[in-house]
Formats: sequence, C-alpha cells, structure tokens
Amino acid sequence: MSRPLIAHADIPRNRLNLPETIWWQDGELFLLDQTQLPLTVVGERQDDIEQVFASIKALKVRGAPAIGVAGAYGLLVGLRDHQQQPLAEFIKLIQQKADWLGEARPTAVNLKWALNRMVAYAQDCTADSSAALYEQLVQEAVRIHTEDRELCRMIGVHGAPLIKPDTGILTHCNAGSLATSEFGTATSPMYVAHSEGTAFRVYADETRPLLQGARLTSWELQQAGIDVSLITDNMSAHLMSQGLIDMVIVGTDRVAANGDVANKIGTMAVAILARHFGIPFYVALPYSTIDFDMPAGSGIPIEERGEEEVTSFGARRTAPEAMRVRNPAFDVTPHEFVTGLITERGVVLPPFAENLKNQYSE
Amino acid sequence: MSRPLIAHADIPRNRLNLPETIWWQDGELFLLDQTQLPLTVVGERQDDIEQVFASIKALKVRGAPAIGVAGAYGLLVGLRDHQQQPLAEFIKLIQQKADWLGEARPTAVNLKWALNRMVAYAQDCTADSSAALYEQLVQEAVRIHTEDRELCRMIGVHGAPLIKPDTGILTHCNAGSLATSEFGTATSPMYVAHSEGTAFRVYADETRPLLQGARLTSWELQQAGIDVSLITDNMSAHLMSQGLIDMVIVGTDRVAANGDVANKIGTMAVAILARHFGIPFYVALPYSTIDFDMPAGSGIPIEERGEEEVTSFGARRTAPEAMRVRNPAFDVTPHEFVTGLITERGVVLPPFAENLKNQYSE
Repeated sequence: MSRPLIAHADIPRNRLNLPETIWWQDGELFLLDQTQLPLTVVGERQDDIEQVFASIKALKVRGAPAIGVAGAYGLLVGLRDHQQQPLAEFIKLIQQKADWLGEARPTAVNLKWALNRMVAYAQDCTADSSAALYEQLVQEAVRIHTEDRELCRMIGVHGAPLIKPDTGILTHCNAGSLATSEFGTATSPMYVAHSEGTAFRVYADETRPLLQGARLTSWELQQAGIDVSLITDNMSAHLMSQGLIDMVIVGTDRVAANGDVANKIGTMAVAILARHFGIPFYVALPYSTIDFDMPAGSGIPIEERGEEEVTSFGARRTAPEAMRVRNPAFDVTPHEFVTGLITERGVVLPPFAENLKNQYSE
Repeated sequence: MSRPLIAHADIPRNRLNLPETIWWQDGELFLLDQTQLPLTVVGERQDDIEQVFASIKALKVRGAPAIGVAGAYGLLVGLRDHQQQPLAEFIKLIQQKADWLGEARPTAVNLKWALNRMVAYAQDCTADSSAALYEQLVQEAVRIHTEDRELCRMIGVHGAPLIKPDTGILTHCNAGSLATSEFGTATSPMYVAHSEGTAFRVYADETRPLLQGARLTSWELQQAGIDVSLITDNMSAHLMSQGLIDMVIVGTDRVAANGDVANKIGTMAVAILARHFGIPFYVALPYSTIDFDMPAGSGIPIEERGEEEVTSFGARRTAPEAMRVRNPAFDVTPHEFVTGLITERGVVLPPFAENLKNQYSE
C-alpha cells in the first residue's frame, strides 16, 4: 500500500522555522520521517494505528516527548472509524488500543504517560456519545501537544543561564526539536541562549548505531544557525582532555524517582567521563519523563534492538556474516553523576529523590 | 593504471590459518587490502613506492607493527629500479626515500622505526655494490618481518596467563593479526589462550569512524573460532556496569617513555571507564612501539584525518552538507590508567618510566 508522502515545502514549520515533527491537520496525523533525515525531508500521513505503531517502532518518530505526542494522536487514528460504537464499548476500545500502542517502545515513559492520560480523560469525560467523546479526545491530544511545546520552551528559559559565553557544550543523541515539540529538551537551553545572542559551540556525538546525532542534532542545530561540530562517540574524552568541553546537556527517556537517568546508549559513558574531567553534566526533561513509580534506574527495562543496526549501515553490511552482536538501545546513568535536572520548573539539584518530590508534590 | 589483484584463494595463509597481511614473493610486495574486509578478501601487488605510500595513507595496510613491516618492504619497492646507481648515490637515495615514506602516517612510531633500521643497516653494510646492498636489504626487511612474528607470539605467551577462564575481554580497534604479523598484539594473548583451550568471551568495539573493530577484529576472531560479540563504541560502559567485562586489552601506536599510550581514538575513554568500574586495562605491544625519545604522551602528534570519514559511510552521506567536523584519529591515555604493558619480554608494571627503562636498558 502506498503511503501519501508530504514534500518538504508542504510541511508546516514551527517557531524555530524548522519542519514540524508531528502535525494534526483536518483530522489526520502526519509525521516527519526522521529515518530519512538529513538528506531527505519528507512527511508521511498515518492512515491506521498499525502504521503509527510501526512508525514509532522504526523510529520514524522518536524522542521521548515526541513519541508521547505521537501516541496520543495515534490513538485517535485507531479510534476514528469506531465512533458509531456504543459509548461503553468505545471506552473499552480506547483502553485496548492504548494498551496495544503503548508496547511500541518499552524504555521511554512518555508514550505510556500520554496514552494513560488519554484513557483517564475518556473515562472521566461526560460526553454523551462516542462521536462527542472522540472530539473531546482530539482536543486533549492537541492540549498534550501544546503543553509539550510550552514545557520545552520553559526548559530553555531555565537552562539558558547555565550556558556562559564562548563555552563548548557536548550533547549525545537527539533531544532536540525533532525529539519533542519545537524547542526540544537538551537543545532548548541552546535555542534560547542563541536567540539571546550568546555565542557558544556545540559538539554533537554522532550516536551509533542509528546516528541520531549525525543525522538529526547536527542538522537541526545547523539549520538554526548554531555553531555545531560533529564527532564520533569515542572522541568526547579526547575533546574533554583538550579543554574543549565546558558542559554536557543531554535529554532522557525516563528519570527514576531517585534521579537515575535512562537515556540513549552511551550517555553513561559521557557522564562518567565528564565527572572525571570535572565537567558539569545536565539532563533536560519535562515532568512527563519522571517516573515516580520507579524508585531507581535499575528497574527500567532496557530495549535490546535488532542486530542489523550494528552489523550494517543502510543497505551496506559492515560486519562479517553470522556475527554475534549486543544492541542495548539505552543505558542508565546513576544519579550521582548528574549535576542537575533542567525542567520546565527550574534546575533541580541533588539530592534528587527529595528535591524531585518537593518540586512535583502536588 | 590497473593494479594486479590477488584472489582470496591465492593469498598465502599464516600459522593461524588467516590470510597474510603482508607478503614478499619473487621480489614483489603484496598487501591484503584491509579497506575491503570483511566482505571482500583481496590482495594487491604494490608496483611502486608511491603506491605503498598511498596504501599506508588509505589504511589498506594499518596497525603500527604492520605499517613498520610494510614500510621496510615498501622501501625496497622504491629502490628496486635504482640498483645500477653508484653505491654512494644509492645509499643517499635510501635515506631520501625512507624520509619520504616515513611521512605517510605521523602517529605510529613503528613506520619510522623500521625505515630508520633499514637506513642504518644500509649505512653500516659492507656490500660492494648497489645490487649487493639491495639483496642485503631484502634480507633485513625479511628479518624485520620474521622478528615481528616472533615478537607478537611472545606477547601472547606472556599475556595468555592474564586471561582467566570464562572472563569477558573488551578490545578496541584492531591490534590483531591484520595489524601485525600473525598473532597480533592485543589479540595475541587471546590466540594463545584459545589454543591452550581457555574459554573466554571477547567484546569488540566497532571503532568509528573506520570500523576496524566491526570489519577486522570481529572477522579475524570469528575466523579463528573465538567467541566474539560486536558492540558500538558507546556500549562499553553499559556492559561494564552489567559485570560482563573483566579485562581490557588494546594495542598501541606509540608508548612514551613514561608509559603514556597513544592508540586509536576512543581508547582513553575505555581506560577511564575501566578504572571507574575497577577493571584492569592492559596494553599489548612489541618494543618497537616504545619511543624512548618521547618523554610523555603530550608530545605525540595526533593525526587529524579527513571529514568525510565522519560525515559519510562508504558512498552514503550520513550528515548534513557543509557540516563542521573533528576527526582526531588517536588519543593519548595517561599512564596512570594502564594496569600493565604486555610486551614480548613480559608484563611491565608501573612505575613505567623506571620499569620500561630497566627492561630495555641494553
């Protein structure tokens, strides 16, 4: 089945003048296909929930906040054709489809967070028909999206003062505009500082195996006019030893209640190296990424992805046939390596268990 | 000009039953083209010294000991057609060509070491004609090659007892059979332990940007029947945190007199992470890799290679156009992170400045 593709020029742009990652238009969900960046900028209409599941699984949309937003809209795609069902049946269906879509990726908490929010909203809603409830759910998904834009912007407002003029910032993977709504998480302090005229340099880890740093972070920072250099993941220690890195800012897929940080594989190495060289290590996140039900990072499931991501690049195989491979997609950085958590409410400092609880106690 | 290619089946094999990396046959130099591994196993005859220079530069032959051996034979290729010159002129020419070929790569000391040895041999030689001297130099190059085989094997003899049954070993880049003559340096303890029936697991860092771990180390260990798993460079901290790594063994391109270790970019990160997790970090090398004229690693020149190695893979571009890039090919691991240097004479322990001097004082 051929999927309707949206050309670069027809993709709506956000306030940073970057193409939108996710957009809902005339009752349809569209995703920027991030697997084709940076060489091809193309959007794809999502025609059924199975396609949304596959798009999340295949990382066409990726980044913890973005897959939350995509999940909320994706649920609508799965409900759209069932509005003639009796209300009680429709609400059961919402729960079933949300449970199913929530399995697309296991590590980031935001997907389940957004789906749970949609289900809870449906259960509490006083709409008197399935069609009316569906319309209310559309508004709720739009609210999740709009809130994510504002959360991301506020992360930047609180994080930008940490960026001093002429400093070097290392980031890993893509916790940028493409991973979220608009400003990103790790990139939001950079976008805000840049808009305020602060000059700084960014070093982007390429982030094997899927090269989100090379393909996505490099691209979006370059588009935004920020001074960015691409490096391979194994170069950061050398640059730190040369005094080129003054701070690290990364995103996260889930923060445990004690401040342990699950993020893209390689993050823990950056954190340990930063500590060794006396460089502050910050993690940027909206509150939806905090999992207060998870006491420590050791309980966070780590997705192990397919071996072909490691043994080949695009269509080209780079390792011997029948090669044994490990491919954990994430690691958990112990909270003692984290200097601060940059959130939409401010920079949370250690002790994290106590300070996160205080900050989000309501 | 088309270069004579040697098919897989026609490449001579070493004692590990792996294809030879470098061979001299009927007065001609042949190199295994390592840039085409693991998918294509092909050798290439080297018809002039410019081709040898280009082959070293393009990493068709790579690894510190191997480029020393290739340099010695490569010098012969450059001298072969000048045997009719008067002896004094011929000796001057040897010096000139050695100086020129020595510039092919700056970081590894073995290339200049082998060329200097050839030049010194020529200057001391009592041959009464250029042709006779040339024949003597062929024998000297063969001796360098034969000695490297024996040095590598002895590294394994001394290093194998460090490998306990059922342990996990991390290695970075390729300091294997392909990087040397036969047993390799970092791999030699593995080959010897394997031949003695010790069971162990190896994790091979893929080693971006040129993937020597994915293409070369994985391939040669797999061919030899050793249990090897391929990982991306940014996974080692996670595997260490899971208790899967019990020791690290890497090779080196140059060891300073104080024990600082220049090796493939990313080695320093592995060393710092190993220290953090309490894992011993060993470096394997023959004496020709020690640079007693270099007091500390800070003086070792670090080759910065072309940006296309980072921005593309094969013919496929993976980063945006006009992307700024850093591409240092090596880093320097401070000696305080090194548990021991596994040499052909035994395992040298700290303090390295003193113990290296004592070991090699003659």
